[in-house]
Amino acid sequence: MVNRRAQDIRRLNRFEMLRRFYAADTAKTRQDLASETGLSFATVSNLTAELLDAGVLVEAGHAGSSGGRPRALLNLNAQRGALVGVDVGETSVRTELFDLSLRELAVHEESLARGEVTPEQVVELIETGVQAVLDTADLPRAHVLGAGVSIPGLVERERGVSAYSPYWAWRDVPMRDLIAERLAMPVHLDNPLKASTLAELWFGAGRDADPLVVVTLRSGVGAGFAFGGTLFRGLTDSAGEWGHTCLVLGGRPCRCGRLGCVEAYVGVNGIVETLRYLAPDDPLLALTRQEDRLLSELAARAATGDAVATGVIRETAGYLAAALGSLVNLLNPEVLVLGNQIADHLGEHLLRDTRAALADHTLAQPLSAVSLRLSSLPHDAVSRGAAAFAFEGFLDDRDVFGPVSRARSARARAKAEAIAED
Amino acid sequence: MVNRRAQDIRRLNRFEMLRRFYAADTAKTRQDLASETGLSFATVSNLTAELLDAGVLVEAGHAGSSGGRPRALLNLNAQRGALVGVDVGETSVRTELFDLSLRELAVHEESLARGEVTPEQVVELIETGVQAVLDTADLPRAHVLGAGVSIPGLVERERGVSAYSPYWAWRDVPMRDLIAERLAMPVHLDNPLKASTLAELWFGAGRDADPLVVVTLRSGVGAGFAFGGTLFRGLTDSAGEWGHTCLVLGGRPCRCGRLGCVEAYVGVNGIVETLRYLAPDDPLLALTRQEDRLLSELAARAATGDAVATGVIRETAGYLAAALGSLVNLLNPEVLVLGNQIADHLGEHLLRDTRAALADHTLAQPLSAVSLRLSSLPHDAVSRGAAAFAFEGFLDDRDVFGPVSRARSARARAKAEAIAED
Repeated sequence: MVNRRAQDIRRLNRFEMLRRFYAADTAKTRQDLASETGLSFATVSNLTAELLDAGVLVEAGHAGSSGGRPRALLNLNAQRGALVGVDVGETSVRTELFDLSLRELAVHEESLARGEVTPEQVVELIETGVQAVLDTADLPRAHVLGAGVSIPGLVERERGVSAYSPYWAWRDVPMRDLIAERLAMPVHLDNPLKASTLAELWFGAGRDADPLVVVTLRSGVGAGFAFGGTLFRGLTDSAGEWGHTCLVLGGRPCRCGRLGCVEAYVGVNGIVETLRYLAPDDPLLALTRQEDRLLSELAARAATGDAVATGVIRETAGYLAAALGSLVNLLNPEVLVLGNQIADHLGEHLLRDTRAALADHTLAQPLSAVSLRLSSLPHDAVSRGAAAFAFEGFLDDRDVFGPVSRARSARARAKAEAIAED
Repeated sequence: MVNRRAQDIRRLNRFEMLRRFYAADTAKTRQDLASETGLSFATVSNLTAELLDAGVLVEAGHAGSSGGRPRALLNLNAQRGALVGVDVGETSVRTELFDLSLRELAVHEESLARGEVTPEQVVELIETGVQAVLDTADLPRAHVLGAGVSIPGLVERERGVSAYSPYWAWRDVPMRDLIAERLAMPVHLDNPLKASTLAELWFGAGRDADPLVVVTLRSGVGAGFAFGGTLFRGLTDSAGEWGHTCLVLGGRPCRCGRLGCVEAYVGVNGIVETLRYLAPDDPLLALTRQEDRLLSELAARAATGDAVATGVIRETAGYLAAALGSLVNLLNPEVLVLGNQIADHLGEHLLRDTRAALADHTLAQPLSAVSLRLSSLPHDAVSRGAAAFAFEGFLDDRDVFGPVSRARSARARAKAEAIAED
């Protein structure tokens, strides 16, 4: 069922405008914002009025007048409140504190034992992390506007539920409410793929790109999409399972029980398989449980020209290019970002080999349209994206941006009319 | 660059509302429309006012009052004008005339010689077709509001250009202007994939589905997408090249010069290859240049339980399920429609086998969310979709739905305010 309301577009335009302040860390006039977003001046005036009322924007002097009226400069009010972003991973819980301009104030990491982890343990580690970052930044809990929490696996955002988490076999755990009760603040739940994609869209290599594809490469691999500046979720929040699309029908066995999935070639286990095939006695094969060390040693050897390591990267890039070529043919994106563990470690080398192989798997027209890039947020894309979810949640809060008040109705009417005649 | 304006959402809401009249061929009150679309009553009132002013809707009596005020019934004004839809295929040019409720008034088909066909020849055949359908329906040319024309291959809609047409090796032919000049009416150019997808979204098996995936199966195969009720085009109008996504890395050679593309398994040539593999001496292999006859004989034999024919369909369904499973994992659609030549001929048999195999290639969660269906518009999806493009073009026409006039400004203000406070 398709459903659109005027409030949805106002919400999108609000983010569109706020993003301009992240894109360039400078104050802007309403005229700047209108010309940068393509929104009408009337729309920008209304949106900035709301954000000024809510304290999210502040006036920051005036732009040099060239004869006409001086124009007010606006900027983000970083001190309006803080945002928490939490990345629950397989082996650690990373908690970051940001100000409202998404500058990092403090970070805390707790490690997580491999194996069985209960929801209650994770909730406690998140609480520990939040208290630690608040202590470091010397801020009271009441200053926090909300927390975004990324939980691996399938998350149903609206219900706030971890529907399925592969590491711990959680099913239908109401994590949002469990965490919100413990932290005593609004909590927004999503998964690492969605958080990374939002982070790239707001702050990273995918800023302003439409369509945007963000590919995350670690044990599991996925593809996050943003169309029209909004995350694409699919009907039941599970869009992006690129790792389990078919690359080689009847090919390598995948963790999911099927054969030939993309993940079995370009995830960490896929890279290990390729290494095992090319050099069955290579000492790196002893490091299969230490993924970061394995990848960093592979990168280090490749940097010295080692034949096995360069061969593994070239082969992996070939598989990756075939799988990415399918995405490019299908979605004709403007930007395709490679991010997460594998991209962080193998970086430019993997990018170069993948770019070289991409033409073998992509039609000429969408190939010439796409820009293939490494993530520019290698270390905290997930927690930063989670904090962005918390910011979205704050902006959506009806208590902050409710129906226009009587006092503002004259201005709203003028604006609405201007929009209607736009 | 992401860009959204209030006029875009108004346009989407207008289509959303009009679609209700196609969905059920009955008159509706504004209250019906509000509850069926989820739009506010104020938005519906404004949209219907515009459409009444433009003559697209008419009043059609009143709904039985149950004590309160009688409520006006509205319906499409089928006589407001006619729409032309043209499907330029590899072997024929099909021209259809519709009234504004998209009921077919007349159809005309001209065959096209295989081999070299010039743009000028196609333009002449379209003109012949348009004159023929107008003669049949006994309507003057001035009654036509516009024509939608589908040209195979890559079409850049905004520029009105056939960027690349594989059958005739056309490159960058400004077909829209050539046709518009000859027909003396507004012309909207697009390709068969986009036209079929729009037809399924407006009138067919994909009505109201979001996300919607429409897979077209003939010599070439493609996947059209509609997200949020709008066609998804990608950055340069080439989204949907599913036929050239990789199914078997290093597999069968494809027409595009690559190996293992989906098209090489599930397009007509793919089916022929599978037949050749299973039964190298089968008499059907003599019919490779007569695709419709080959497919209908294959279907007829399968209906009698013939082992080769049922084997070919089962095998094809297996490849199709693997390729569709990737789409389902990636996009988590609500509805997936199978359409065009192969789906028309092999119909329920292919659908049944594909459904049975889909679970082997799809994750449980998106599998349980998706509904796999045959097109309900088998014979004229492309020309009907092309006519829908012409209708969209008419509705977008600034002369019809321009900025609100002074006379309507009071009503518009009331409405805009209502939206702003929605």
